[in-house]
This record gives sequence, C-alpha cells and structure tokens, in this order.
Amino acid sequence: MNNFIFYNPTKIIFGRETIKAIGKEIPKDSRVMITYGGGSIKRNRVFDEVMAALAGFDVAEFGGIEPNPTYETLMQCVERVKNEKVDYLLAVGGGSVIDGTKFIAAAALYEGEPWEIVKNYGMTVKRALPFGTVLTLPATGSEMNSGAVVTHRALNAKLPFSNPALFPEFSVLDPTKTYTLPAGQIGNGVVDTFVHVTEQYLTYPVNGKLQDRFAEGILLTLIEEGPKALAEPENYDVRANLMWCATLGLNGLISAGVPQDWATHMIGHELTALKGLDHGKTLAVVLPAMLKIRAREKKEKLLQYAQRVWGIQSGDDEARIGEAIDKTRDFFESMGLPTRLCEYGIGTDVIPEVVGQLKAHGMVKLGEKRDVTPELVEELLQNCL
Amino acid sequence: MNNFIFYNPTKIIFGRETIKAIGKEIPKDSRVMITYGGGSIKRNRVFDEVMAALAGFDVAEFGGIEPNPTYETLMQCVERVKNEKVDYLLAVGGGSVIDGTKFIAAAALYEGEPWEIVKNYGMTVKRALPFGTVLTLPATGSEMNSGAVVTHRALNAKLPFSNPALFPEFSVLDPTKTYTLPAGQIGNGVVDTFVHVTEQYLTYPVNGKLQDRFAEGILLTLIEEGPKALAEPENYDVRANLMWCATLGLNGLISAGVPQDWATHMIGHELTALKGLDHGKTLAVVLPAMLKIRAREKKEKLLQYAQRVWGIQSGDDEARIGEAIDKTRDFFESMGLPTRLCEYGIGTDVIPEVVGQLKAHGMVKLGEKRDVTPELVEELLQNCL
Repeated sequence: MNNFIFYNPTKIIFGRETIKAIGKEIPKDSRVMITYGGGSIKRNRVFDEVMAALAGFDVAEFGGIEPNPTYETLMQCVERVKNEKVDYLLAVGGGSVIDGTKFIAAAALYEGEPWEIVKNYGMTVKRALPFGTVLTLPATGSEMNSGAVVTHRALNAKLPFSNPALFPEFSVLDPTKTYTLPAGQIGNGVVDTFVHVTEQYLTYPVNGKLQDRFAEGILLTLIEEGPKALAEPENYDVRANLMWCATLGLNGLISAGVPQDWATHMIGHELTALKGLDHGKTLAVVLPAMLKIRAREKKEKLLQYAQRVWGIQSGDDEARIGEAIDKTRDFFESMGLPTRLCEYGIGTDVIPEVVGQLKAHGMVKLGEKRDVTPELVEELLQNCL
Repeated sequence: MNNFIFYNPTKIIFGRETIKAIGKEIPKDSRVMITYGGGSIKRNRVFDEVMAALAGFDVAEFGGIEPNPTYETLMQCVERVKNEKVDYLLAVGGGSVIDGTKFIAAAALYEGEPWEIVKNYGMTVKRALPFGTVLTLPATGSEMNSGAVVTHRALNAKLPFSNPALFPEFSVLDPTKTYTLPAGQIGNGVVDTFVHVTEQYLTYPVNGKLQDRFAEGILLTLIEEGPKALAEPENYDVRANLMWCATLGLNGLISAGVPQDWATHMIGHELTALKGLDHGKTLAVVLPAMLKIRAREKKEKLLQYAQRVWGIQSGDDEARIGEAIDKTRDFFESMGLPTRLCEYGIGTDVIPEVVGQLKAHGMVKLGEKRDVTPELVEELLQNCL
C-alpha cells in the first residue's frame, strides 16, 4: 500500500427533510449567495425549501450556471459576490453548480487573474469563501471533495483543479430531491460514479485490500441499484444508495494509498469541450475502449474485477477480461448511454482535435503509469467510433 | 436507509516514516504534553522519533496510562496539564492512551467534576484541548473518532462517552510501528475491530447497501490478513491493511444510516471492569453467544453474513447461520483468543455480578431493538461458560 494523507472535513447531512438543517450550519449574520443552474430548483420547490431554511439571513441569488460551468459565467458571479459583499456561498444543484461555486469561492478572494487558479490546478489558491451545498443530482462527488472542473469557452478548455480550501463545509443530501430528475441524468450520474471508481480501482495491485473491497462495493451497488432507479424513480432506498455511492466514489477514501488512472476522464473532458457531449456519455464511450487497449497493463485488477464485480469464474484470462469489459459496456447501455461515438453523430474528424487539445493542455503522459501517449489515444479513439 | 449525519475532520497521515510530519500539524509555540502508556514507546524508539519531530516545541510528558485507562490516573495528568499550561496533547500509543487523552482534553477545560463527563456520555462537554495521536496498536478506532471509554476504579465502572469536540486533529498511522507488538495484542486488535464491525452490521436490514458492502469488506480483509499478521510480523502490507481496517471500522462511516447493536461491547466492558479480562477477549467470548441467542432477530443479516463473508451457500437457514457463527468462533480462536469464560478461569459467579453492574449503569435495554434485557444477558452468559 502507498503512503497517503486522508482528510475530509465536509459534514454530510443525509436523508429526508434535511434541507431545513442548513440554517444552523451557516454563521449568523452571513450574507449568503445561493448559486444554481437552469432553474429546475425553482420548478421543483427545492428553492422554496432552501429559502425557508434561510429565514433571517440576508440572501442573494445567482442562477444560470450551466452544465460544464464556464469561466465566463462564473466570473459574472464573482463580480457580484465582491460588489455585494457576500460572505457565504450556498450551491444548490448538481456537480456543475458545486464545481462552479468552488471556482467562485476561490476567485472571489484571489489576487491576480482567476483563470490562473485553473491553469495551476488549484495550487495557487490560498483561501476561499466558505460554502455549503444542497445536492440535487448525484454524480460527480463534488459535494464531498475539494476538486472541481471548469470550462473556458474562449479557449475550448475543460480543466480540473483542487485545493484543500475548497471542501464544502456541509452538504445536504436528500434523496427525495432526485425523484424528478430525467432518466438521462440518472444514467449519466450512475456512469459518472462508476467511472470515478474504476479510475481509482482498475490500475495495478498494491495490496490495498480495503480500498479494493470498498471500490467493488460501490460498483456492485451501482449495478444493482442503477437499473432500479430508472424503473422506480420514487424508490427512496434506491435513490439513497445511489446518492451515497456518488459521494463516496470520489471523496478521497477509495483512492487513499492506491494508484489512480484518470486518463478516461481527461479524454472525456476534451470530447465535452469540443463536441458538447455530456460528461457521463464521454466516459461511457471511452472507458470500455480504454480497458481493452490497456488490458495487458491492467491485467491483474481486471481479472479481480471480472471475478468480484461480475462473478465471472470461467475461461482463460483473456476471455474473462473480455467478458468483464463487455458486461461493463452492456451496463452503460442499459443505463441509456450509447457507448460508440457514431451514436452521438461524432466521426473520425474528432480524433486529431482531441489529440491536439490534449497536447495543448500538456496531457501527453496520462494514466497510472504515465504511458497513455497521444499515439495511444489516437488508436483508442479509432476503437470508439 | 436511515437519516444520518457524517462528519469526521480527523486528518490521517498514513504510511512509512510519517511520524516526522507531526511538527507541521501542531501550532507553533504550543506547549505539548505527550501522553503514553507503559513505556514500550521508549523501548522501541517511537518516543525518540516523536521527540525529534517536535524539535523546537516546548514538550512535557505523562506516562503510565494503563490499559482500560482509569479516571484516577487520568486526573493526575489533568492536574499537570492545568498547572503546566499545556495547550496541545499528543497521544502516543493504542486505544487506551488515546481514549485517556480524550478524557484529559475534555477534563482540562471542564467546569465541574470531570467524572460528570463520563456519567453524561460526553454530552456536557463544551470544548476540549486540541490533540493529535501517533497510533502504535490498531484496534479501537479511537484515532479517527470522537468516542472513548474510561474506567472508574473506585466504582468498578467502565463506561463510554463521546463528543464532537473530541476528534483528534490528526493521527499518524505508521504500520511499521506495529511490528514489535506481541502476538496477543495483534489478536486482541483484530477481534476488537471485527466486533466493532459486527456491532454496526449484524442487526437488521435497512437497505444500506454500501454500508453492508463496506462492513463486509473490512471483515473479509481481517479474515484474510489477521492470521498473516501472526505468521509474518514484518509484512508491511498486512500490517497496513489491518491498521486501516481498525480505523475505518469505527470512524462513523459504516454506521451512517444503519442500526447499531453494541450489546456485546457493553457486556464485555462489565467483564473487563470486574475481572480485568482484556477487551478483545471479552468480545471473543460474548459475540458468538450473542449471535446464537439472537439468531432469530438477526436472521436476515446473519444469512447475508454467512454468504458474503464466509461463502456459505448450502444448508437451510438455521444450518447456514450456525455454520457462520462457528466459523466466527474458529476465527477468534485462530487469532489466539479462547472463546469460553472457563478458559480464562472465570466461572458462574460472574453472571450475577455482570447483570448487577449492567443494571447499576442503566443498561437494561441493550441492542439494536432494545430487547437485550438482564434476563437475556444471564442466559447468554450461561452459554459463555
């Protein structure tokens, strides 16, 4: 097992009727800015519940944070936060709103041009406004980690950053608030969580037995509960299990002490930035091809995955690995996500573009062994067509 | 799944050569009191490493905290902490030293007679001195939770308390520091961790699928790694896995959203207070009998445990549950812990004493359904002879 530091001070308030708890989590006399996305929280009454919980606070709001939140939009909020002397942010939404709010929290107190925060992967952040979240779309895990991904529209760049100052102080997770999500967002969220876990699990063995068991536990739960979430949108326990999977899939726990990959995500980010394809869909396309092209490097973990997650017992190594990858692809398809670029109307022309953008972003040695080169990405994308 | 709050701000610094990191975790200009037990840390050089890491700090020390730390001993340290204006505590040792240090941290700032802290289960604690830990014996999980157990010798009482002010700020976990532990302490630690997990897992189902998978993951890892730890004391990965199991077995994660039992622990505490039996050994005796006598109430989870943890597939329900309990008992014995009171020279006379003490401490409705009565405990202890 590798050395590690695990630190995660976010307080999770989980369950039915928990939005009303937020008033006690925010310091009295705070001027609070509620940040949100396209307005679904106003249609489904989450916004009203949040406002009721904030009775007595001085509250402002900033809506319109888009999926794949952009620097351009977020900077408008930063401007308002500064002008209106906001001292607490409350993100109400999914991963995009929360990621965007992390950028706002850091940028509001940043000395210098805020895009530097992203360019330097968050390392130049010294402090940030405190913030909490009310999660409405389980997927990214942003509600319990210190990372975020922001897109610079003018630069066609979608890039990650993180900093210990960017943990939410609290996150409210009420599974009933996910009942009204469209099936497409549930599918995206399940696949996103699944691939977060495989990025931390399908690498090479370092004898991190508990990390492996926990990762497998999340994957098994997603496989069991994912299809039920589509079939029974108001099954509380199913939604609760998926929500907790998404959070624990990327809160630093299963990656503590083990190698990490993230090549699939980096390639996916470029596809989203170039073609606007949903994040979850990019992962559904790239992961099966990634596992196949790197099957030799990932052999031991893939065999363990085949056995423990998919219950595959027979066949030679190659056959078992192939079956596990096929089952992974089938699972994504069963969640409503096609796994071929052509099904999204994307053709060969995207390949040089993605490779070019990866190079432009310095991402020429990806993966847990830094051996995913631009040439390998090119071959991999051919297999995704 | 039940509603829950999960909050755990302890920073874990895990791995080889990590003691040297503690100097950066403690505020400069602190007057630090190192607390420890019987002095093994001086023999195995852990103390020297800690002192080297604290170069530049003003350091005092308090040794002699015993296994099952006593109010009487701890109050001597509280006196010194006050007189010497200590403002940071550093516990170096196992669960007893860390538990004792939590009491010291709370008592040093407590207004009133400090035993009240324990009598009120920690609820009257308002603040505590900050503290960190260097763990040398993985078992209790105290290094990453806010609970502790303290014994009042004059009252023959061993009682638990907890408070959110009692999380360690950081804990250093270096698996190499456990190489020199006697086999008996490894056995105790593995069984203690195992039973922590069963207290949170073997109750009744609430569809907490991830909590179940994580609990099963810890149990499977203990079963795999426990015997290896006895056979190969300097196998780093084995010790690392056991250490991380002990921490994650009782840091609030696997209990979040599910029922908890703890009857085995409460009975075990009385056995320790009355007869001085090691904590782990009391659990090895009580748990198999507890599972057997409550097999009907715990049926669904016991069947799941039989299948997922012990791989038992065949036989009727009763046979599978019986086999799982037998395997549990065999595992404890294989770790060097007898599972019958007679093997510790304890006879029937202990039964009315334990029952009397449980009544004296108000523990007359134990277990996840509050149905473990003094009468049931009497019958259970008959089965432990």
